[in-house]
Amino acid sequence: MQAATQEYTKEYGVTPQTTMKALVFRGPNRIGIEEVPIPKPGPGEAVIRVTLTTICGTDLHILRGEYPVKPGLIIGHEPVGVIHELGVGVTGYEIGERVLVGAITPCGQCHDCLRGHLSQCGGPIGGWRFGNTINGSQAEYLLVPFAQANLAKIPEDLTDEQVVLLADIASTGISAAESADLRIGDTAAVFAQGPIGLCATAGARLKGASLVIAVESDPVRTTMAKKMGADIVLNHLTQDVVAEIKNLTGGKGVDVAIEALGTQATFESALRVLRPGGTLSSLGVYSGKLSVPLEPFAAGLGDHKIITTLCPGGKERMQRLMELVRHGKLDLVPLLTHRYSLEQITEAYKLFGERQDGVIKVAIRPSVPRKQA
Amino acid sequence: MQAATQEYTKEYGVTPQTTMKALVFRGPNRIGIEEVPIPKPGPGEAVIRVTLTTICGTDLHILRGEYPVKPGLIIGHEPVGVIHELGVGVTGYEIGERVLVGAITPCGQCHDCLRGHLSQCGGPIGGWRFGNTINGSQAEYLLVPFAQANLAKIPEDLTDEQVVLLADIASTGISAAESADLRIGDTAAVFAQGPIGLCATAGARLKGASLVIAVESDPVRTTMAKKMGADIVLNHLTQDVVAEIKNLTGGKGVDVAIEALGTQATFESALRVLRPGGTLSSLGVYSGKLSVPLEPFAAGLGDHKIITTLCPGGKERMQRLMELVRHGKLDLVPLLTHRYSLEQITEAYKLFGERQDGVIKVAIRPSVPRKQA
Amino acid sequence: MQAATQEYTKEYGVTPQTTMKALVFRGPNRIGIEEVPIPKPGPGEAVIRVTLTTICGTDLHILRGEYPVKPGLIIGHEPVGVIHELGVGVTGYEIGERVLVGAITPCGQCHDCLRGHLSQCGGPIGGWRFGNTINGSQAEYLLVPFAQANLAKIPEDLTDEQVVLLADIASTGISAAESADLRIGDTAAVFAQGPIGLCATAGARLKGASLVIAVESDPVRTTMAKKMGADIVLNHLTQDVVAEIKNLTGGKGVDVAIEALGTQATFESALRVLRPGGTLSSLGVYSGKLSVPLEPFAAGLGDHKIITTLCPGGKERMQRLMELVRHGKLDLVPLLTHRYSLEQITEAYKLFGERQDGVIKVAIRPSVPRKQA
Amino acid sequence: MQAATQEYTKEYGVTPQTTMKALVFRGPNRIGIEEVPIPKPGPGEAVIRVTLTTICGTDLHILRGEYPVKPGLIIGHEPVGVIHELGVGVTGYEIGERVLVGAITPCGQCHDCLRGHLSQCGGPIGGWRFGNTINGSQAEYLLVPFAQANLAKIPEDLTDEQVVLLADIASTGISAAESADLRIGDTAAVFAQGPIGLCATAGARLKGASLVIAVESDPVRTTMAKKMGADIVLNHLTQDVVAEIKNLTGGKGVDVAIEALGTQATFESALRVLRPGGTLSSLGVYSGKLSVPLEPFAAGLGDHKIITTLCPGGKERMQRLMELVRHGKLDLVPLLTHRYSLEQITEAYKLFGERQDGVIKVAIRPSVPRKQA
Repeated sequence: MQAATQEYTKEYGVTPQTTMKALVFRGPNRIGIEEVPIPKPGPGEAVIRVTLTTICGTDLHILRGEYPVKPGLIIGHEPVGVIHELGVGVTGYEIGERVLVGAITPCGQCHDCLRGHLSQCGGPIGGWRFGNTINGSQAEYLLVPFAQANLAKIPEDLTDEQVVLLADIASTGISAAESADLRIGDTAAVFAQGPIGLCATAGARLKGASLVIAVESDPVRTTMAKKMGADIVLNHLTQDVVAEIKNLTGGKGVDVAIEALGTQATFESALRVLRPGGTLSSLGVYSGKLSVPLEPFAAGLGDHKIITTLCPGGKERMQRLMELVRHGKLDLVPLLTHRYSLEQITEAYKLFGERQDGVIKVAIRPSVPRKQA
Repeated sequence: MQAATQEYTKEYGVTPQTTMKALVFRGPNRIGIEEVPIPKPGPGEAVIRVTLTTICGTDLHILRGEYPVKPGLIIGHEPVGVIHELGVGVTGYEIGERVLVGAITPCGQCHDCLRGHLSQCGGPIGGWRFGNTINGSQAEYLLVPFAQANLAKIPEDLTDEQVVLLADIASTGISAAESADLRIGDTAAVFAQGPIGLCATAGARLKGASLVIAVESDPVRTTMAKKMGADIVLNHLTQDVVAEIKNLTGGKGVDVAIEALGTQATFESALRVLRPGGTLSSLGVYSGKLSVPLEPFAAGLGDHKIITTLCPGGKERMQRLMELVRHGKLDLVPLLTHRYSLEQITEAYKLFGERQDGVIKVAIRPSVPRKQA
Repeated sequence: MQAATQEYTKEYGVTPQTTMKALVFRGPNRIGIEEVPIPKPGPGEAVIRVTLTTICGTDLHILRGEYPVKPGLIIGHEPVGVIHELGVGVTGYEIGERVLVGAITPCGQCHDCLRGHLSQCGGPIGGWRFGNTINGSQAEYLLVPFAQANLAKIPEDLTDEQVVLLADIASTGISAAESADLRIGDTAAVFAQGPIGLCATAGARLKGASLVIAVESDPVRTTMAKKMGADIVLNHLTQDVVAEIKNLTGGKGVDVAIEALGTQATFESALRVLRPGGTLSSLGVYSGKLSVPLEPFAAGLGDHKIITTLCPGGKERMQRLMELVRHGKLDLVPLLTHRYSLEQITEAYKLFGERQDGVIKVAIRPSVPRKQA
Repeated sequence: MQAATQEYTKEYGVTPQTTMKALVFRGPNRIGIEEVPIPKPGPGEAVIRVTLTTICGTDLHILRGEYPVKPGLIIGHEPVGVIHELGVGVTGYEIGERVLVGAITPCGQCHDCLRGHLSQCGGPIGGWRFGNTINGSQAEYLLVPFAQANLAKIPEDLTDEQVVLLADIASTGISAAESADLRIGDTAAVFAQGPIGLCATAGARLKGASLVIAVESDPVRTTMAKKMGADIVLNHLTQDVVAEIKNLTGGKGVDVAIEALGTQATFESALRVLRPGGTLSSLGVYSGKLSVPLEPFAAGLGDHKIITTLCPGGKERMQRLMELVRHGKLDLVPLLTHRYSLEQITEAYKLFGERQDGVIKVAIRPSVPRKQA
């Protein structure tokens, strides 16, 4: 619970009008909707009423106890909402404005932020706070730190569903081609077409790749990859993907390979399909030890680059991405395959965790605002 | 005339089988088809049989005596053809292969080329040779210097018309957004929608601009600008373009402004519509003195960048651009509004020079190969 | 006067212990030391007791009425000091710590800052506030906005004099070679060796130029240019500088030309000495119209780049520059040719304004802390 | 043996005047001076009379059979010499001119070269030819392919010893900081101070690092590291280098870590000392499998970059580096600890291979030119 809320609670006492529903993590495989206090913003903070959020693969890791967070935490980190209350010092915003809030909430003022590493704000991935070190977005209200840097106003002509994925997965996915400095006419291969991989495919297309080869075996995701801009989708279960990619590029290999899963197998394949001097842009979160195969390379790593990128943050980037949606250059709504109310969120977790029914992303919509909002 | 041809002529004498038709510049407003020797390639050179070429705005400047070239020169610099003969030392190519040849023919081995400034090969714009310092492409055959670096093989599935504009105007136009380092989601304004401006519009779209604003008054070019990727086309004759662009970008100005005409007016407007810290990417060739207005800027030039780019050269870039065409990301065929045989080229010059009949680019096709080919 | 001070004043009344000495601008050519309230920090702000500051060329423009500021303003923007008081929400700092504060005070949280244009914070050069839109540093105390982003802690082993010039002129001057992307072994010419030009010379050396040619006629500055890293200093009054620079670079011209004065003559010379495809990095603040000569260029601007840079801001950069000083890579103390107390500052203005006695920069040291500090 | 030589031999027969001494590799641990034909240049080639060369660590790998080359090959790839004969088509050079020739001999005209990957010329490290796929420099004469792109004229005021190391180890070593895009004031750690590591140390200093930390245990190399620009040298045998580097950088880690040995241990340490978002610039040639430790990173590889670079080639770069030497910014002569004639080269191999007598690099000087030269 935030300091602002504690003060508020202490000063006024919690009353029905001051509580909200939220998904609280109580330990591995123990989550549930609870009634908790609505947060109050301190200086530089804001509280938004969440109108749309999602479940991320990271939330599944938390649920299963694979990524440790403190019991009692509200999880979730992809929020769209309406400004409910503004703390002292937040200027240029008004109550009632619709905003997209990034999964990463950089302060903009520390050494890492000022160097341009917003996701590293304040130390190793300190920038990721929601549902990690502070309460997250699977709730009716959300306290946003460093609000000035992290509230991106949503243009009137865009719906919540059009922008919600820009908070995290699209911001991350699209960054792969950017980090790799993909040039107009370059070829790209994107390994795995989960939500982030699908956005990486869209990003490679947006940045001007001539040929985007996606790798995926799931038929729903294969279809979606084409919708996102893949020219060809290879099936790693039935095809020799490395040989096929070499073949599709006249024997040379691709200019940019994007890894979007986080396994040894996809990392290795991504390295093996690179042309000499190509770039591996890595988005996946690996665990254990990662092994770099050297035998495909004539000398060491052969002029290759391996670039890893976490979700870039900050409102400026989200605004740029919203402009792409607004002008018809990017449409991520098809990725939202299922929709649930906040009350039904545990069902959504089950469906998403078991990858039932061709699910790609689930949209979670907290109930119609209750009277206190 | 090239050394190789002279030697050939001297040794064998010119016979009917060794001559070709070509457009020869004889002085201001004096051009005509003449019968001249087919060139012979020296070491490192190639001769191609030209299957398609065009007329460029620069050719009009030459015709009018505004850009000086030596009388007797064959002009033209946008060639597509078939390899007719290869000089000693050109490897990896075969007679009969279809190739695109750049307007700029860098050697790849001088100080400028090795630094990456291919268009400056050997000194200030030494890289532009065809129809400038050596014979050009408005002929049945063309001698290509530094063939190894400048013959880009055309994939079988592409027609001559699909690739001919990549030799110069598209290579130049698309480079504007690249030189400006336009980022995904950035906004861009492109001043003037002549052939190069239209390609600059396509380039801004290809590089991931969210909003591409074109500026043009001609209705044919306005329609074409939309086809190339402009979201909005403003008419500078009827609208306050600077105010309108500021308005369309929420008062901020565009991230990138592209100048594609070469006049004081478009240069000034391009500077005035930039956001603080924005980039003016200049493609136009100015004459006389260019004046930089300072009063729109709070301090000096206000963190702006002004980047000028000539046609980037080399086969690697042309091959990348051909891949874009091949995979459906770029279609320049609509710019070829008129088609002529080489014999009719003076008519084509007249139409193109007077901008009759909505002409954008004219395609010139030398006659069906005669028996000596 | 700041809101925090007004509140303080209103609440407590101004008492002798709450006032300080400061240089107040009252109109063109009307400045003088006055007794004014010590500011109080609002949320996110800090007050530092100034231990060292300077006079900048810009202050002379203000004094002469050439750059408009509101009468009543305390001027000056190069401050070193000790933290006197911290506003709510400033964390990681303690009263008594020594800090360098940039001339530019970016918020880190607006669109411009998050894009990396810190000097454009909040709009055209909004980032420059001290002695421009808010009270400046020629005073005993200074209110620092956005303190979190702008207080750079001074390592213990560095003196005030070693770091004071990093707040503005060295940060600006060194950025010229950085903005130009000068490569190891490149050649550079720096036009004018005033305080910023001298730092630009140091920057070109620091970034690995093989040959740094400075242009200056003043003998004191010529000597200092060599101390800062110039290999050669040319005198534009007695030498044909353009011809000489071409000659020194084997006829090619320099890779990077830096303009550090802001006149038509230096701008033109800087353009004329560039090699094809070279970069003009412009630091000077021009007035009126700037004319770009085109006749030295074979085509338009010939692949040149013109990059303008204002003072980059933020504590991260200042800390990096302090590390250079700390490890003996940069020594700017020789530029501080004269030292004055705050009480003597009008004398300092006279000497600096008239460029008497070989002055380069003057150091202003407010009196020994009085009892209220 | 080259085609040109074979033709020459066939046509004229080998006579005493047409042979030279050269070190020939006959199989693992079997090398010796032999009398072989002086090569003749074909089109675009040149023959230089070698006046200085060296032995590289790679030559030791070849000698030991660890890197396979064809028996009969002349090895060595760091040549300085005088132009002896020029093939057809090489222009701008004259017999008798002194030249530095790179270890990498890019053609400048293939897809890889035109993209800027000179070391990958024609396919995976095709750019490295001397003493690998064609005869090398440990001989009296050397045939240089693609002479136009690879002969860098030596300024008159530089000696052979001043430039010989720029052909390979300095070009490679210095590139580490460049590939990492090290910024002015950044901190750097360089793991291992062999010849390449020492040059990497010089490169980090040249590019403007504030603090260069070298890691080395050998006392001779420790002393040399300081001469090359290391501020501090840590001894990995007696110190916890990772902890110490963290400590020296205020707990943050370095901005750039350079690996210059090619072992799992140095690679791992280099990764572990990086600040979040830092760059590992890898020069070493690893063998077997390389393992990437993940536990030091909070998420995946945590925004890190791993950049590998082989020797950049081409005369433009060598000329830039020579200018650094010429203007006193770089002095590599101290690395030449031992000097031998070509006749003594097997002794030199023994000393260098066993790292006797504090050897860093050996200079090999073919005998005084014999009459045929």
